[in-house]
Amino acid sequence: MLVLGVDPGSRITGYGLVDKKDNLVSCVEAGVISSPGNVPFYERIHKIYISMVEIMDRYQPGEMAIEDVFFAKNVKSSLKLGHARGAALIAAVNCGVKVFEYTPLEIKKSVVGYGRATKEQIGAMVQVILKHPKRFGPDISDALATAICHLNWTRFE
Amino acid sequence: MLVLGVDPGSRITGYGLVDKKDNLVSCVEAGVISSPGNVPFYERIHKIYISMVEIMDRYQPGEMAIEDVFFAKNVKSSLKLGHARGAALIAAVNCGVKVFEYTPLEIKKSVVGYGRATKEQIGAMVQVILKHPKRFGPDISDALATAICHLNWTRFE
Repeated sequence: MLVLGVDPGSRITGYGLVDKKDNLVSCVEAGVISSPGNVPFYERIHKIYISMVEIMDRYQPGEMAIEDVFFAKNVKSSLKLGHARGAALIAAVNCGVKVFEYTPLEIKKSVVGYGRATKEQIGAMVQVILKHPKRFGPDISDALATAICHLNWTRFE
Repeated sequence: MLVLGVDPGSRITGYGLVDKKDNLVSCVEAGVISSPGNVPFYERIHKIYISMVEIMDRYQPGEMAIEDVFFAKNVKSSLKLGHARGAALIAAVNCGVKVFEYTPLEIKKSVVGYGRATKEQIGAMVQVILKHPKRFGPDISDALATAICHLNWTRFE
């Protein structure tokens, strides 16, 4: 089962594809989607959408896991985050990829075992779980953590 | 020139197509996009996207006008609004429709001549400007007002 984890952001959107075989999870592909600073906001959002569609077309994940956001720093940043998150959701529904949402608490508990884990701790645990030679960047780590969280939640089903 | 005005919202998205011929503006088509209450949020957002694509495919507007939102009631409602607004922007870029953004102040000033106009006043002026037999609903009025604002801003170009 191939799961796409996404950490949406209007500046940087992290994504990671995690595979599970014989109870072993591994990272198939991971990266970030971003645009140069001078690109209009609506084109940045469109780029997130088309990049997500490309990734889903190429790797055909069955499911997408994404953070269920309830709050952000302020009204302005949550407006921007909403655009980016919407782009990922629209891409998933368009590509027939099932959407699963997890709260930040669920993701942190699932990966680090502790709901108040720092970004550093998440990055370290993601590296350990995926047996990856080096630490992923924070946006990729968060995306992979979301995918790992989904695999943990569904493993007894 | 056919202009599509959009008033995005995660519950109700208003849209209106305004045509300008010989300095006369008229409403070609207007309506709302909404989903039943039990539909998952990500499917509501996807519906806004596909409905906007359908409208653009059918009417082929050259330009889309949309409110440039800077604030909302709170963080939660701005997150939701961001998703809906993103859906409209992605549809426009995908369909090759140029995006123009106007602040609420610009829209109100352009339509009512007064930056603190109420929704009631906007609805009344939109009806007068478009010589429409009856008042449009508030979501449609706001969408049409945004399109009219765009036509006003570009009329001397």
